[in-house]
Amino acid sequence: MFDKRAIGVFDSGLGGLTVVKELSRYMPSEDIIYFGDTGRVPYGTRSNEIIRRYAREDAEFLLKNNVKLIIAACGTVSSVASDIGVDLDVPFFEVVSHAAKSACNVTKNGKIGVLGTSATIRSQKHAEYIKSILPDAQVVSNSCTVFVPLVEEGWYADDDPIVVETAKRYLKPITDAECDTVILGCTHYPVLKGAIKSVVGDKVTLIEAGTSTAIAVKEFLKENSMENESCNVGKHSYFVSDRPNSFKNIASVLLGKKIDDDEIKQVDISKL
Amino acid sequence: MFDKRAIGVFDSGLGGLTVVKELSRYMPSEDIIYFGDTGRVPYGTRSNEIIRRYAREDAEFLLKNNVKLIIAACGTVSSVASDIGVDLDVPFFEVVSHAAKSACNVTKNGKIGVLGTSATIRSQKHAEYIKSILPDAQVVSNSCTVFVPLVEEGWYADDDPIVVETAKRYLKPITDAECDTVILGCTHYPVLKGAIKSVVGDKVTLIEAGTSTAIAVKEFLKENSMENESCNVGKHSYFVSDRPNSFKNIASVLLGKKIDDDEIKQVDISKL
Repeated sequence: MFDKRAIGVFDSGLGGLTVVKELSRYMPSEDIIYFGDTGRVPYGTRSNEIIRRYAREDAEFLLKNNVKLIIAACGTVSSVASDIGVDLDVPFFEVVSHAAKSACNVTKNGKIGVLGTSATIRSQKHAEYIKSILPDAQVVSNSCTVFVPLVEEGWYADDDPIVVETAKRYLKPITDAECDTVILGCTHYPVLKGAIKSVVGDKVTLIEAGTSTAIAVKEFLKENSMENESCNVGKHSYFVSDRPNSFKNIASVLLGKKIDDDEIKQVDISKL
Repeated sequence: MFDKRAIGVFDSGLGGLTVVKELSRYMPSEDIIYFGDTGRVPYGTRSNEIIRRYAREDAEFLLKNNVKLIIAACGTVSSVASDIGVDLDVPFFEVVSHAAKSACNVTKNGKIGVLGTSATIRSQKHAEYIKSILPDAQVVSNSCTVFVPLVEEGWYADDDPIVVETAKRYLKPITDAECDTVILGCTHYPVLKGAIKSVVGDKVTLIEAGTSTAIAVKEFLKENSMENESCNVGKHSYFVSDRPNSFKNIASVLLGKKIDDDEIKQVDISKL
């Protein structure tokens, strides 16, 4: 069985490229179309109403490009606007529930930390999913507004004192509560994994939403005979709604491989 | 002579409230209408094309509210989109040229530092204005992407180690060059004045665009007989395009006085 249509992925900006990285690791022959709403980033500090409208427009752009499945590779959209998936003509995946499931599988002491944007944490979606699986789990959340700008500034080295100090401050309630598992609930955060690891120590497991979601999507495509069974390496197309300076460097860091300017097309999302 | 119409002020978000603070200090009887584009903040990392479009829409909103003068209280708009002022039916003020003039008046060694968003620094507008006044001046600029999120997170205490460390890193090229004057080229930065002062020391003068611009506007209104000569305290109206969480707290910090939720109206800028 074949379904050669691409997987559609959207995010508020470039963070979702960490999800693309995981998708292509688990499903190397799938085509992927990525839309990063860099013209309206960040979503994480906006109201739920605005986030929902933007997410619907992002999904519509992907549908116009004939995708077979849509992933909201954005912790914020997954947390406060995943209901937009109900009306779509293709299967819809968000990144929160899969990360929550992985955390529940991994935790031994039932104490789970969650890091995310302020909209994500306010929604308490991670806690909701976790408690539906492990009703007695203790969930300690903290919103980390400064993490995304640190990554976009290129300050993400494991031993950068500003990064480490910021991570310490955000993780304090989580380490104080002795959580043994921490969900990186925003797609930018995997880049800060080293610094976060240096704060929480080796005994704590970090859960990346991208990995959990990629595994779930792979299973879904298999069960529904929707895989692209070609032996070729999948084609990846990248679209953004704005192209700010130093954009290419950040994209390469998040994607984990070099990406060239001419691989990225700009679209005007407000006129679609 | 009287002109009772309000002064219109817009900014990409809430940073421009530091300019409102200065305007009301210098012109207490003027009415002020403020529009903060919180639904599309930040402008500073976007492309010039997008910044120009947004700025034009912001100015149009103020014109519909019958203002007598418009101030772009935003370092980014002032730097890359001040040409939108040419087509307006009312006088237009930006904040860059006035800050540059003040810096030129103050500097003794002709070495001037400029801090701003990445779009502001890329534009080199401050340097251009400074060199038109002091051709031999040495201008050392640095973009400070992380400053605005720090303020919006509520991390601005003079002795916060993350704030001080971040200020040290951003100011290093400026202190290395022994600048005696530093322009705070983004309207959020006055909140970080204490921390910046602790890094540069007492011998360096910090220039706030809000103060320089308020003085220039006051002079202009007087010269053109456009002052509101009423003895009453001016009425201030605040509009925003989104109302995210913890919004009121940040607004109060920037404005330097408590502001209540019901004083702030929300408008949909994309539908105006």
